[in-house]
Amino acid sequence: MNQDAYYSWWQRQDLCYREGRLFFAGRPVQELADQFGTPAFVYSAERVRQNLERLHAALSGAGLAGRFSLLYAMKANRFAPLLTFLRQSGLCGIDACSPAEVEHAVSCGFSPAQISFTATSLSTRDLTALARYPGLFMDCDSLHAIRCWGALKPGTQIGLRVNPAMGIGRAANDKLHYAGATTTKFGIYWEQFAEALETAKAYDLQVRKIHFHTGCGYLTPQLEQLERIIAHCFRFVEAAGEVERVNIGGGLGVPHLDSDRPLDLDRWAAILQGQFAGRGLHVEIEPGDYLLKDAGLLLVEKTFVERKKDRTFVGVDAGFNIAPEPAYYALPFQPLPLRYDPSPCTEMSVVGNINEALDVWYEQAWLPDLSSQSHLALINAGAYSSAMASHHCLRGQFKEFLLF
Amino acid sequence: MNQDAYYSWWQRQDLCYREGRLFFAGRPVQELADQFGTPAFVYSAERVRQNLERLHAALSGAGLAGRFSLLYAMKANRFAPLLTFLRQSGLCGIDACSPAEVEHAVSCGFSPAQISFTATSLSTRDLTALARYPGLFMDCDSLHAIRCWGALKPGTQIGLRVNPAMGIGRAANDKLHYAGATTTKFGIYWEQFAEALETAKAYDLQVRKIHFHTGCGYLTPQLEQLERIIAHCFRFVEAAGEVERVNIGGGLGVPHLDSDRPLDLDRWAAILQGQFAGRGLHVEIEPGDYLLKDAGLLLVEKTFVERKKDRTFVGVDAGFNIAPEPAYYALPFQPLPLRYDPSPCTEMSVVGNINEALDVWYEQAWLPDLSSQSHLALINAGAYSSAMASHHCLRGQFKEFLLF
Repeated sequence: MNQDAYYSWWQRQDLCYREGRLFFAGRPVQELADQFGTPAFVYSAERVRQNLERLHAALSGAGLAGRFSLLYAMKANRFAPLLTFLRQSGLCGIDACSPAEVEHAVSCGFSPAQISFTATSLSTRDLTALARYPGLFMDCDSLHAIRCWGALKPGTQIGLRVNPAMGIGRAANDKLHYAGATTTKFGIYWEQFAEALETAKAYDLQVRKIHFHTGCGYLTPQLEQLERIIAHCFRFVEAAGEVERVNIGGGLGVPHLDSDRPLDLDRWAAILQGQFAGRGLHVEIEPGDYLLKDAGLLLVEKTFVERKKDRTFVGVDAGFNIAPEPAYYALPFQPLPLRYDPSPCTEMSVVGNINEALDVWYEQAWLPDLSSQSHLALINAGAYSSAMASHHCLRGQFKEFLLF
Repeated sequence: MNQDAYYSWWQRQDLCYREGRLFFAGRPVQELADQFGTPAFVYSAERVRQNLERLHAALSGAGLAGRFSLLYAMKANRFAPLLTFLRQSGLCGIDACSPAEVEHAVSCGFSPAQISFTATSLSTRDLTALARYPGLFMDCDSLHAIRCWGALKPGTQIGLRVNPAMGIGRAANDKLHYAGATTTKFGIYWEQFAEALETAKAYDLQVRKIHFHTGCGYLTPQLEQLERIIAHCFRFVEAAGEVERVNIGGGLGVPHLDSDRPLDLDRWAAILQGQFAGRGLHVEIEPGDYLLKDAGLLLVEKTFVERKKDRTFVGVDAGFNIAPEPAYYALPFQPLPLRYDPSPCTEMSVVGNINEALDVWYEQAWLPDLSSQSHLALINAGAYSSAMASHHCLRGQFKEFLLF
């Protein structure tokens, strides 16, 4: 990526340079860094709302108004102020995957009836805790879960998470495949589906939802695969009988590089409308990344700039342990200077403060002379960052701020 | 690996089956699991001591008695009781990499003079905090660090961490390379070494140690490379002048699979003796994995056993977030049943409770019928496990126990 591309692809009204100063959520980022200290995650409430509203508009525009629900996958970011903001927006429910997540969502204002629960490898302890929340909607991920939930909550409605044994996602992220060619722990496969339905019946559970995870981080080029997976999964819906809802999981991605085109939401919504038209089914979608990722920055302080052998390194005061996506998933968080003018930059490696080789934020960042600058902002840090933070090397301290 | 190999390669006096029951640190593991609950890490103090003593014996046996120090790399496992146990053993000092680690080591009983500090991307805040510990030995990792430390502590002795631009390690773990062909953030390269020495001199700092990281997880086949790196690094020692100590980092690995042979410690020690003989240098070694990894088990509870499509899955009540090595680094933690008889086992995938595809503990575990068993023990979970735990999906709860 050249310097022009580096500085153009991500700019938008609420994240851009104005007279050389980086602005986010209406504020000069330097002021945020000076006030809050670092490392700090800052989230734009307005951007989250825009992301939510864009999904609503696309789905309604395609003809799905009144026939869809958005369920925020809270494992992407569980910062309590954010959850309460989402609750108050009225624009989404919650996708939870552990009893503690359910409790946390409730503590932030969601009612159990606004929470859809889909998880794997639940213990008896987990299931007993979940059964205490009336209205919580359980998607069973195994025959075992059907039997256990049936014993705890006979006569209730459930969903079945199925595994279409087809998966999509970015090629760079094989690790993120839920449902590809290899058999995974997730969901009930077609080979066991008839037994799952019989088991549900034996426990007087009514299967009203089919859930399947369609992939992860997909953008426009993956939409054809999405369509094929949805089409394929109606065999489960039809076999189950009185299904009212279909949950297609999350998976909507955001661009990380200049070469990524944003997801064509209208085309995505048109595919859903095309597949679901005339079926009388309510569609659930579980965005996580799509709502939060580009609504968050990680603010870090520069520790040094130095030539080592043949490369220039910029060190910062935070490491991969507080935001593991760049190191573990090769999903870059592009670093930005808080002051920029279009004079020539040079390529630098932005690295963290953990004593491990994988602690690299970005390999080839186009940065200006930083001698008079103190901070950097890393974009796309809103999801699967603080949520996955560890205290490795006792370097796990960070702050979070929701900006209105 | 076949069933015989699966059950033979790791057995040792303090981790073995006796009359079909798994014993660890002299206790039946089932009793530990029942008493402590799960997930729980259990560490054998005796095994840690044996690992330490084995290193001492090999180094002394090779002729290095009185000329070496072991510095436990505490980022491998910072469990406080363990640190105090190590302190009281008198067999090692500490390798720390953040100010909070120094504080924690001191809180567990180490004196600052027993701590060697080697880190990267230190902030002014970090350096100021470190300067408060008299006797702490600082290895500077950059010209920037030399200047900052020199301003804070002029006239003191320091080490220089250099980068030999050669690295070793297991091929499967490219991510773990500190010092390979690609220029990394770590250490001072030969190209900048003269300037580093001048800078130290300008601040009246006396360079008394050369530190270099030789690699990660190496076993016997990598010893030739180790020897080449050490030989190569004497150029730094000679250029620096009055060096008294050389720190060769950690890197000693432990077997993870039947196909791994344990590190030949005598050969390793002989290489060190051969390289350092007659040089009048004190050798520092920073083991982390080697001391702790095989001294720890992760005890988990079975959540279900189920056939999915064509594979059998065993679910457990802990996910990769509390011990990320298997998921992120492909370093398997082999699962063991707590009761075993040599009748035929079948291959099963042991998986965790996190809603992510990479949450797999072990792909092909040879396990007996588990219908009457409640728990599994994962071996080699003593290092870089709890230390790197996150609260992802709010599934970060675990306990730790030091067993005497």
